[in-house]
Amino acid sequence: MDKKMISENGETTTADGSICGYDSLHQLLSANLKPELYQEVSRLLLGRNCGGSLEQIVLPESAKALSSKHDFDLQAVSFSADKEQMRMPRVVRVGLIQNSIAIPTTAPFSDQKRAIFDKLKPMIDAAGVAGVNILCLQEAWTMPFAFCTREKRWCEFAEPVDGESTKFLQEFARKYNMVIVSPILERDIDHGEVMWNTAVIIGNNGNIIGKHRKNHIPRVGDFNESTYYMEGDTGHPVFETVFGKIAVNICYGRHHPLNWLAFGLNGAEIVFNPSATVGGLSEPMWPIEARNAAIANSYFVGSINRVGTEVFPNPFTSGDEKPQHNDFGHFYGSSHFSAPDASCTPSLSRYKDGLMISDMDLNLCRQYKDKWGFRMTARYEVYADLLAKYIKPDFKPQVVSDPLLHKNSS
Amino acid sequence: MDKKMISENGETTTADGSICGYDSLHQLLSANLKPELYQEVSRLLLGRNCGGSLEQIVLPESAKALSSKHDFDLQAVSFSADKEQMRMPRVVRVGLIQNSIAIPTTAPFSDQKRAIFDKLKPMIDAAGVAGVNILCLQEAWTMPFAFCTREKRWCEFAEPVDGESTKFLQEFARKYNMVIVSPILERDIDHGEVMWNTAVIIGNNGNIIGKHRKNHIPRVGDFNESTYYMEGDTGHPVFETVFGKIAVNICYGRHHPLNWLAFGLNGAEIVFNPSATVGGLSEPMWPIEARNAAIANSYFVGSINRVGTEVFPNPFTSGDEKPQHNDFGHFYGSSHFSAPDASCTPSLSRYKDGLMISDMDLNLCRQYKDKWGFRMTARYEVYADLLAKYIKPDFKPQVVSDPLLHKNSS
Repeated sequence: MDKKMISENGETTTADGSICGYDSLHQLLSANLKPELYQEVSRLLLGRNCGGSLEQIVLPESAKALSSKHDFDLQAVSFSADKEQMRMPRVVRVGLIQNSIAIPTTAPFSDQKRAIFDKLKPMIDAAGVAGVNILCLQEAWTMPFAFCTREKRWCEFAEPVDGESTKFLQEFARKYNMVIVSPILERDIDHGEVMWNTAVIIGNNGNIIGKHRKNHIPRVGDFNESTYYMEGDTGHPVFETVFGKIAVNICYGRHHPLNWLAFGLNGAEIVFNPSATVGGLSEPMWPIEARNAAIANSYFVGSINRVGTEVFPNPFTSGDEKPQHNDFGHFYGSSHFSAPDASCTPSLSRYKDGLMISDMDLNLCRQYKDKWGFRMTARYEVYADLLAKYIKPDFKPQVVSDPLLHKNSS
Repeated sequence: MDKKMISENGETTTADGSICGYDSLHQLLSANLKPELYQEVSRLLLGRNCGGSLEQIVLPESAKALSSKHDFDLQAVSFSADKEQMRMPRVVRVGLIQNSIAIPTTAPFSDQKRAIFDKLKPMIDAAGVAGVNILCLQEAWTMPFAFCTREKRWCEFAEPVDGESTKFLQEFARKYNMVIVSPILERDIDHGEVMWNTAVIIGNNGNIIGKHRKNHIPRVGDFNESTYYMEGDTGHPVFETVFGKIAVNICYGRHHPLNWLAFGLNGAEIVFNPSATVGGLSEPMWPIEARNAAIANSYFVGSINRVGTEVFPNPFTSGDEKPQHNDFGHFYGSSHFSAPDASCTPSLSRYKDGLMISDMDLNLCRQYKDKWGFRMTARYEVYADLLAKYIKPDFKPQVVSDPLLHKNSS
């Protein structure tokens, strides 16, 4: 009931101009176009794997039952790859969870956190019984995305890497033999109790493999995150798990092609992009950036955005000349996967919690490196040289001026 | 008549799985969705400028008459920007031309070239009378895209930078006070008569401002271009014209985010991407990469792809286990503009010649640099360091292995 209230607030208070009555772009198109037209539109919008040949994964009834009972969107589709002679297929089942918060932000913090844990439990169970090998949760999943408020009291949600949320997830990792990527607000006890926006990588035995801290911190609109934590100091680690090499590009890092590139240079086969972003700001970018990264770097990308509108107790302004208000706008969900061959899955709902599952043969990464040759033709030495020059204060851009310019512009 | 024959070949022989009877994705959607649904789909697919508020430019009748008489697609839409207090708007009218070849590839070379010149004349005139300030033609516009054949006789189409095609365009530049970007196959007389894939920048007074040579050369499918020319040696120049700072990312360079980045670091406000690419290979990537570059680098992008199917005299194979054949597949046109605010225009036809015109206030570039802060938050020093290490033979990727990995995978 609380969820419903929050969801309704989201749909009525958001100013993103969206119409109601549809769950996702692809649901809207499939419901309103003739099948042969939808197939052609899918070919153009989703690429080869989805152009009429999108293969649905058959999930166990127990997973579907959890989805029905707990009212979350559940989609499962498969990316194909060519058979090779010298390597066996390396098919991995990967899951993404998107969710709204569970109770109002006015509730006691420990209740809020516990309610999110309770809400996620059946979704993680569904991933587990569906045989998901690697599961990623959304950015700062243990809390509302309170950074818009600039209030420091929300820092109480921060945890050390081996804190409460990690312990909660370690049980699932062990139970289901599942790698879990857990993006949290981290408090670094050993370094003056500062905070970071961090993804904890939990191995399939429940062990902590490592962590990655968000590299690029936004200063845009209500994303006042630089009030709370600084640019990450963990580089661009790729985590070698039993199921493949994974990395995490947290939220705003998706706008930085160099960040995507670095995970690729370090050998990532799947890069997760746990995010929190709202319709009025970023929705037309959402299907572009992750997919471009998958193409350019020959890896899979799993994009996650939280859902719903989060209403805060005290009003705040947004640096946009508009009146003070109590919410951040509508987090539009729309989690999905992109592949190295430029294909992508349809998206989860813009409004509902959801679990997106895909099977992906990681051999597709090297197949597309070989096919398109982007690494081979990248001329990294040219760009190493350019960037080395660019970061110096006396950098001069390479500009060729029309010699007649001053004559013309007089 | 020859054009028609070529076009029909294209639609019947291409194996890209496309259906006929529509001109572009957006034309298909607008013709088959209710207006309010199309508006929402446009908001999601085209971004804020096109979400119901796409402003059509009123063109002079003389331009429309040329379009009707010579049967080319003509579209003209406007991007908006905020008014500033300290700068006047800097609205520039920019044009893109896409075209098929004019007569069969079996005709004498000089006839083929002349026929393309004759075909382009009314299209360039239309741009001129429509008041276009900067016009860009397609890649290697003076010739069929013969690199699939691996035959060296097509090298005869190469010209020096001040050759026949440049002289042809200089007249239009002077007549219409128009900057023209002319991508040709260049023969470098002063360096052993080698060839380059080059864009010549012709100033609005008919002067040659400079040239840029394609930085990244493909080795994929029928794109046997590395048989003909090498990676460019001109860096990432930005050309300062009376109408703004422009650059040219030629064709396959669009797959390289670093190439886009470099033009941005050098200060480009508009980057053209003259291309030649076919449906079976790249169509799902086409709306993604240029638009991502516009977002990530806070500049406008003009994307051009040639049109039609070009049938060559001698059969060739494509490195794909399929039988020999005489054509490259269907060049799907679909030229369009992308903007720093993540919006883009609908595309020109997949089948017809076309002229796409947009008005763009170049102030939008800095407005979006300020709004999103991508340059400010980019941490270039991190990537300069990473690339400097990466290009060394002994580079070791940053990999964190699960310590239990060998135990698990045994």
